[in-house]
Amino acid sequence: MAERIVVIGAVAAGPRAACRAKRLNPQAEVIMIDKDDLISYGGCGIPYYVSGDIPDEKELRLTAFKMLRDEKFFENAKGVHTLTKTLATKIDREKKLVHVKYLDSGKEDTIAYDKLVLATGASPFLLPIPGRDLDGVFAISNLHTAIEIKERISKGLVEKVAIIGAGAIGLEMAEAFRDLWGLEVTVLEYFGQPLPRLLDPPMARIVAEHLKEKGVKLVLNARTKEIEGKDGKATAVITEDGRYECDLVIMATGVRPNSQLAKEAGLCVSPLTGGIVVNERLQTSDPNIYAGGDCIEITHLISGKKMVISSGALANRHGRIIGTNLAGGTETFRGATGAFVMKCFDLAVASCGLSYEVAKLEGFDAFYALHNQTERAHYYPGAGLIFVEIVADRRDRRVLGFQAVGPMTDGAMARVNSIAKLLEFKPRLEDTSYMELAYAPPFNAALDPLNVVSMVANNIADGLFKPIEFDEVIKRLREEDPNTIFLDVRSEKEAKPLMEKYPGRWIWIVYDQVRHNIAKIPRDKEIIIVCNSSMRAYEAARVLYAAGFDKVYVPLGGMNFVRRWGWEL
Amino acid sequence: MAERIVVIGAVAAGPRAACRAKRLNPQAEVIMIDKDDLISYGGCGIPYYVSGDIPDEKELRLTAFKMLRDEKFFENAKGVHTLTKTLATKIDREKKLVHVKYLDSGKEDTIAYDKLVLATGASPFLLPIPGRDLDGVFAISNLHTAIEIKERISKGLVEKVAIIGAGAIGLEMAEAFRDLWGLEVTVLEYFGQPLPRLLDPPMARIVAEHLKEKGVKLVLNARTKEIEGKDGKATAVITEDGRYECDLVIMATGVRPNSQLAKEAGLCVSPLTGGIVVNERLQTSDPNIYAGGDCIEITHLISGKKMVISSGALANRHGRIIGTNLAGGTETFRGATGAFVMKCFDLAVASCGLSYEVAKLEGFDAFYALHNQTERAHYYPGAGLIFVEIVADRRDRRVLGFQAVGPMTDGAMARVNSIAKLLEFKPRLEDTSYMELAYAPPFNAALDPLNVVSMVANNIADGLFKPIEFDEVIKRLREEDPNTIFLDVRSEKEAKPLMEKYPGRWIWIVYDQVRHNIAKIPRDKEIIIVCNSSMRAYEAARVLYAAGFDKVYVPLGGMNFVRRWGWEL
Repeated sequence: MAERIVVIGAVAAGPRAACRAKRLNPQAEVIMIDKDDLISYGGCGIPYYVSGDIPDEKELRLTAFKMLRDEKFFENAKGVHTLTKTLATKIDREKKLVHVKYLDSGKEDTIAYDKLVLATGASPFLLPIPGRDLDGVFAISNLHTAIEIKERISKGLVEKVAIIGAGAIGLEMAEAFRDLWGLEVTVLEYFGQPLPRLLDPPMARIVAEHLKEKGVKLVLNARTKEIEGKDGKATAVITEDGRYECDLVIMATGVRPNSQLAKEAGLCVSPLTGGIVVNERLQTSDPNIYAGGDCIEITHLISGKKMVISSGALANRHGRIIGTNLAGGTETFRGATGAFVMKCFDLAVASCGLSYEVAKLEGFDAFYALHNQTERAHYYPGAGLIFVEIVADRRDRRVLGFQAVGPMTDGAMARVNSIAKLLEFKPRLEDTSYMELAYAPPFNAALDPLNVVSMVANNIADGLFKPIEFDEVIKRLREEDPNTIFLDVRSEKEAKPLMEKYPGRWIWIVYDQVRHNIAKIPRDKEIIIVCNSSMRAYEAARVLYAAGFDKVYVPLGGMNFVRRWGWEL
Repeated sequence: MAERIVVIGAVAAGPRAACRAKRLNPQAEVIMIDKDDLISYGGCGIPYYVSGDIPDEKELRLTAFKMLRDEKFFENAKGVHTLTKTLATKIDREKKLVHVKYLDSGKEDTIAYDKLVLATGASPFLLPIPGRDLDGVFAISNLHTAIEIKERISKGLVEKVAIIGAGAIGLEMAEAFRDLWGLEVTVLEYFGQPLPRLLDPPMARIVAEHLKEKGVKLVLNARTKEIEGKDGKATAVITEDGRYECDLVIMATGVRPNSQLAKEAGLCVSPLTGGIVVNERLQTSDPNIYAGGDCIEITHLISGKKMVISSGALANRHGRIIGTNLAGGTETFRGATGAFVMKCFDLAVASCGLSYEVAKLEGFDAFYALHNQTERAHYYPGAGLIFVEIVADRRDRRVLGFQAVGPMTDGAMARVNSIAKLLEFKPRLEDTSYMELAYAPPFNAALDPLNVVSMVANNIADGLFKPIEFDEVIKRLREEDPNTIFLDVRSEKEAKPLMEKYPGRWIWIVYDQVRHNIAKIPRDKEIIIVCNSSMRAYEAARVLYAAGFDKVYVPLGGMNFVRRWGWEL
């Protein structure tokens, strides 16, 4: 078909749609426009460019075979006519025209289309606080901002950075500033933990402690009120409780879909999410107009609700699906389970589906289990610990989400990607307990952490042990609760310091002797059994239940969690 | 229920079943017997023990918290009464008795059971050739063999090793001997590639070349006839074509299930696979007798056929399911898709499902696609190449299998585990093309190699390009086929040597100039377009098809494969 396809937006979904459509339908005339002059860049690589890991901004715009993806590239290699610094100002759906303004000349024009693609992306959400327009206040909105920030650092203009928001972007930027540049970095987070919604507190605390070890100052429950300035330049961030001096402020407080153009054209835009509404073929309410990438709302495949999500991975998928459908295809995008991974200094952090806290908010009868074990066979040299959480629904044991925090290997991603797509098929805990996973000692254990944490959750659901959270354990310990005894089943060396600190209340019976020493355990007390991963504690609990004990509790996760939180018992 | 459970076999499935049953039903008396004195060891760790990565054999028998898993351990920690050096000689199902022989004293006895578990494992298959009983000929059957082999090496008694069989065990042992001990290692493989059935030739060739680089002599199509000896000691392996001197021979030619005891007891044992027949609850044809681990036959979830498979991962799953069901549970094991991973020197090698060659044998209308790209975002520093293959059915585009060979990271495992379990749900290529995978530049690309290779396969199925195998490319090049022109769309530097070597037949038009230089391409020839991953070649082919060319071919995989095969064009 010799039709004309116009694509608005040339970063991820846009180019992917334009090029695929042109390949499938070479007769089509494909025009791609973008208001920027830097296009088709790897936006997710920005923190690594700022850190210096990637020396030149151009590398984010190169193909794998080192060609620069500029207008000429799209013209020559892809046959896609590309106009940069060209702002789409209006869509006239009746006449099928896009009104544009050429930003260099200021001239205006119209471009006719048969099919239109909106890949307008998202913009950073800036907190509506005084001082947000001061010099030195940035949001990571595009490559220009990144270049500007890096220039300021290179010139030695930056010593102290305040980052508002401990989400993925905030923490990636914290590492970029801290790790290679050695800047003083403070991260101010509104919620009580880093990576809210992505991780639950037991996992997030590991990240928080790691940030501390790496010299990042993380301030939780920080309500930012104002950015203070002098001579037009930002000098400090003011919260309800404190004042944080800085010469650079990064607002990493989320993004909003760029759906204004669509809305003004009368396309259906969700008042709830702000995203452009599309069907599974990624058509908007006007079937001649497709939309994809950060500007649309999509279905969360676990909660069933609509959401907007900023994701280069999804944008590329949308783009290709749109490209296929523009050429007469019938491909669909059903939604996402929110697969997520990030590097945070020496940690790999990953999750998918719903966190426990979100699952509760969404109305699930949610519960969770924690586990930790070495990432590889425990006898394989050099294996670090990986910490995992699984979230399930108590009613039908459906798996709702999974989280992993481990050493900076592909291990956390491997576990999350093993389950992310599977979540669509509504697996139960029995499915993930026995889920087949490739195994060899240099890579994992015969029972992967993903298997084991599912088994732990199933044991909880079966009532095989009574779980208790460490917050409650610590509370009882601190409050010197006379009705609770702590039974440590680890080695004597591990138990001794706590026995000495809490004489009479913290008792020790090594794991393999519990069965023979039941008489030593008081029957009139509540018993909390402690070990490093709560595996031995669980087994000891089974022995006590069999011996007629009832109020016996096993902490979720084990002492390795507590240690990695930096908590003192 | 105060019943007696007897478990025969104490390595993987056995202990797992025994301990789980005892935990769930503490009233049960659980007795576990094994003919060996070394029990409950990590058998998959043997190569790493022989190599020296794991210094002491005991480490394979320790728990993660460093307790030795011996008879006392099972007695004290698990409440499982454990008899070692106790051979089960007969099962009397009518009287519900296991006849045993105590190997130390030679005394015989019977043990009554209410429920019986067979976890008798598998034994190495020894080639029926002369010399197989010579001193110095080993199969990796158990920890004793491993200790004996390591002792011989430590004492300097071994200089040259011949390994018969280039399956996973054979190659793991090759690395163990070669990498740390520096022995001269020859691997003799009956088939024309290493890792037959696990990998297809394009992937296996990468492994073969890597072995060569690491100084392992790999002899393919080697029909072993005899092991030659002197004074009762093995001195050489004789094949139909050669003679390989050695002072140690490892037979790594597969295993056979230990099902004799079951067979003699009248239980159903498959004459086809030799495995004990079980239902999904892992009950044998006698509902009071369960079986699991390497001694049973299981269902291949793609082919639907029965198979026997030696897998510590599956054995542990079987054991726990049996333990649950012994205590009144209803858990099931439906089968496996054959998820596999191994370390081979600096490579990680992984696969799941059916290889192309096996899929054809199984009657699928199979085809495959290859791809390679950097394991991480291509701009992220230090990313190595990962090579992947996907196998699908042409009729319905169902994904049948997946293979990955990459750097020695968790990347290959991550990709295989992302899809292994999913294969049960009969995904189509569209599902894996757009499959959601967690993404960040330090871990992968926005479109993962798993996505991209699925897209390539879908493009093949859609007829968007005509694939050609490199074997055919090379043939046409070598035979100076006058009807074929090779169009190199890479950089001039990459194309030049081949243009000079094949003047007039190997022509160069850089990727982004193909569209403008169609006149330079002869219309009366068949065109094979070449680049490193066949991505640019595919795009160029689309341009040529649109310009009216028909016989335009894109090699599967690209030049990076050829390079890693060590082939000269």
